[in-house]
Amino acid sequence: MNNATRFFSRAAGTMQESAIRKMGALGARGTDIISFAPGFPAPDVFAWAEFRDIAQSVLDGSDATVLQYGPTRGYRPLVEALPEILAGRGIRATPEQVIVTTGSQQALDLCARVFVDPGDVVLVELPTYTGAITAFRNTQARLVGVRQDRDGIDLEDLDRTLLAERAAGRRIAFLYVVPNFQNPTGLLVSLEKRARLLQWASTRDVLIVEDDPYGALHFTDAASASDTRPIKVDDTEGRVVYLSSFSKTVAPGFRVAWIAAAEPLVAKIEVAKQAADLCTGGLDQRIVYDVWKRGVLAARVPMLREYYQAKRRVMEAALEREMNSLVTWPEPRGGFFLWAFFGDAIDTDAMLEKAVGHGVVYVAGSAFFVDGRRSGFARLSFSAPSHQRIEEGIRRLAVAVREHTAATTSAPAPG
Amino acid sequence: MNNATRFFSRAAGTMQESAIRKMGALGARGTDIISFAPGFPAPDVFAWAEFRDIAQSVLDGSDATVLQYGPTRGYRPLVEALPEILAGRGIRATPEQVIVTTGSQQALDLCARVFVDPGDVVLVELPTYTGAITAFRNTQARLVGVRQDRDGIDLEDLDRTLLAERAAGRRIAFLYVVPNFQNPTGLLVSLEKRARLLQWASTRDVLIVEDDPYGALHFTDAASASDTRPIKVDDTEGRVVYLSSFSKTVAPGFRVAWIAAAEPLVAKIEVAKQAADLCTGGLDQRIVYDVWKRGVLAARVPMLREYYQAKRRVMEAALEREMNSLVTWPEPRGGFFLWAFFGDAIDTDAMLEKAVGHGVVYVAGSAFFVDGRRSGFARLSFSAPSHQRIEEGIRRLAVAVREHTAATTSAPAPG
Repeated sequence: MNNATRFFSRAAGTMQESAIRKMGALGARGTDIISFAPGFPAPDVFAWAEFRDIAQSVLDGSDATVLQYGPTRGYRPLVEALPEILAGRGIRATPEQVIVTTGSQQALDLCARVFVDPGDVVLVELPTYTGAITAFRNTQARLVGVRQDRDGIDLEDLDRTLLAERAAGRRIAFLYVVPNFQNPTGLLVSLEKRARLLQWASTRDVLIVEDDPYGALHFTDAASASDTRPIKVDDTEGRVVYLSSFSKTVAPGFRVAWIAAAEPLVAKIEVAKQAADLCTGGLDQRIVYDVWKRGVLAARVPMLREYYQAKRRVMEAALEREMNSLVTWPEPRGGFFLWAFFGDAIDTDAMLEKAVGHGVVYVAGSAFFVDGRRSGFARLSFSAPSHQRIEEGIRRLAVAVREHTAATTSAPAPG
Repeated sequence: MNNATRFFSRAAGTMQESAIRKMGALGARGTDIISFAPGFPAPDVFAWAEFRDIAQSVLDGSDATVLQYGPTRGYRPLVEALPEILAGRGIRATPEQVIVTTGSQQALDLCARVFVDPGDVVLVELPTYTGAITAFRNTQARLVGVRQDRDGIDLEDLDRTLLAERAAGRRIAFLYVVPNFQNPTGLLVSLEKRARLLQWASTRDVLIVEDDPYGALHFTDAASASDTRPIKVDDTEGRVVYLSSFSKTVAPGFRVAWIAAAEPLVAKIEVAKQAADLCTGGLDQRIVYDVWKRGVLAARVPMLREYYQAKRRVMEAALEREMNSLVTWPEPRGGFFLWAFFGDAIDTDAMLEKAVGHGVVYVAGSAFFVDGRRSGFARLSFSAPSHQRIEEGIRRLAVAVREHTAATTSAPAPG
């Protein structure tokens, strides 16, 4: 077909492929490429035996509704379990205030559709999660970045940005934040800043979308559960839309996540989901529910914390050993990501070709900045590769960094 | 929260709950309500034993990617199987021309997002599938209805409508049609009309979205496989986006469907899907793939045709027996639906309360008409209830119809 673009909507024209997925595909293609690109949980700690066992009992045929179209809100026992799970994080919610989504990506997409009109402003951290960026862009949001420091979003820059956008006559749809082990920086926002952020949102009447896929996975050598207290806990005005997921603690292949928010917001999100996919997979929801119900999840989370913490240590040690002064990073106190900075002289987009040549992949920082900047940052995921692969991957990366640095600094100055 | 609507987008303001889902919920709530409302396949003909067996082998742990994030395009072996499945229907497609979706509802949603800008026209049949209506409305499409006769869409009305919309300066995003056993009418469009429709689309340069969830389920007493030849078969210009699903032949709880279209269209749809849910469930896709690969699907489809045909016969016989002259309908030659007409004096929306009172539910015709009309039509799904429940349900419906007719005709004339 020639000129297929004549059929496309303007929204389609602005849709962009995810850099993470592109890098992920690259990592999957090579025969010996070590990938630090995608934020994949490690399948070797999935509860395979329990999944098999549960799948058997769920599919025994006694409950015909398992494989039927299900309620858009979610499998009822799971919907009723979510308030209990949320209570464990300090969040009070009724079943009317929660909805199951087909992964958190759908939750982001539904938020975009229910809250954003073309041209509306979505405030995001600099840098922020690419999946959120693409979901918000697809509703033609105007994405406006706010600076972060080591303690998370910069509240002064946030207020200045908000006022400037409002002064320009633009509607602020919401502020998107990932306070726990942010993607890509791994940063943990302090409790004090969370409180001030919520206070600010109340004063300025801003809706907050709080994305919390990693909150359960703090590292005991650097943080405690109380440090991950969601902003939603203190939300007395119903202005926080809280997103979380079973993808990192159970398995992403089930595509089961959820939203907790004020009842009228959830009711509208349900209507949007109805048209988006009718319902989340029935077998998937039951397996996830049973994993929780049987206590498998509760029993495994402490193990997962240790498991990912150990990988983070391996990556940090390898970085120190292999490239010491060439790289810095904020210590990840939980989650899957290490946000490496190779200095202002490095462009990680330009360096990627060299890295791939040496058999290692990362996601260049540019993917996470809505202001379009290139930089010396790269997101390194330590979650999926083995200890040995992490060490080997960092060795390869060190070679690439040194080669790239040498090529850059020895290049003749422009004449 | 007071005044939650201040957070909603304009798109959210126009989102409407599906009438089918509403009726479905009603049917699920009552202790003894017989539901002809949702288009549910019958779980008693799901391949439960095979599903269990396949789930075991898929979850044996040897393939870690089963429960990992998967490719947005779909599980590769399934993506490569789809051209073979399509070839069985006469459609030539490469793996680059197909994409797996999270149910056909997502396919409809992605089409809306990739092809429709707010205010664009989507041409639909009068009546048409409510799930398509809601998906298209959510991108603020202008839905314009085209008349149908017994042979499907009225080509003269179609052309007149198109020209009028274009003359008014509006962009036509696409024409949405369900040529095989349409939802809700059950109509089968003749091959001759399909050919003329495609010719018309070429002349007028219109994109066609052809939705075919029921094509495999023709009834051998009234149609043959060749009668269901998709429009897509003869699409030499890449202007037909073909949608189909495993929901009716395998099980809807797996949420696995697909789109076949020209390569650049599928590529753009993939980008849209990436932001919508990253990927369709991995376990689900593998079960569906194995059901196909092992020949379970091929072996079962003839049985399913007989099974649903028998139910259609039971419903038709019950309608003739219980309300003979009070109702007419076009014979369903496949699929799940009987489109009952109770006469112009009846308003099936108004009658619904009476029906529920007698313990039976249907979807009132108004849900399927984008022109907002109320009418004497109702969609009766014969797919899910047992023969006995169909007979009992039609008995109840007959009582409701008679009572409603009596109440309507004996009402005093307005003074």
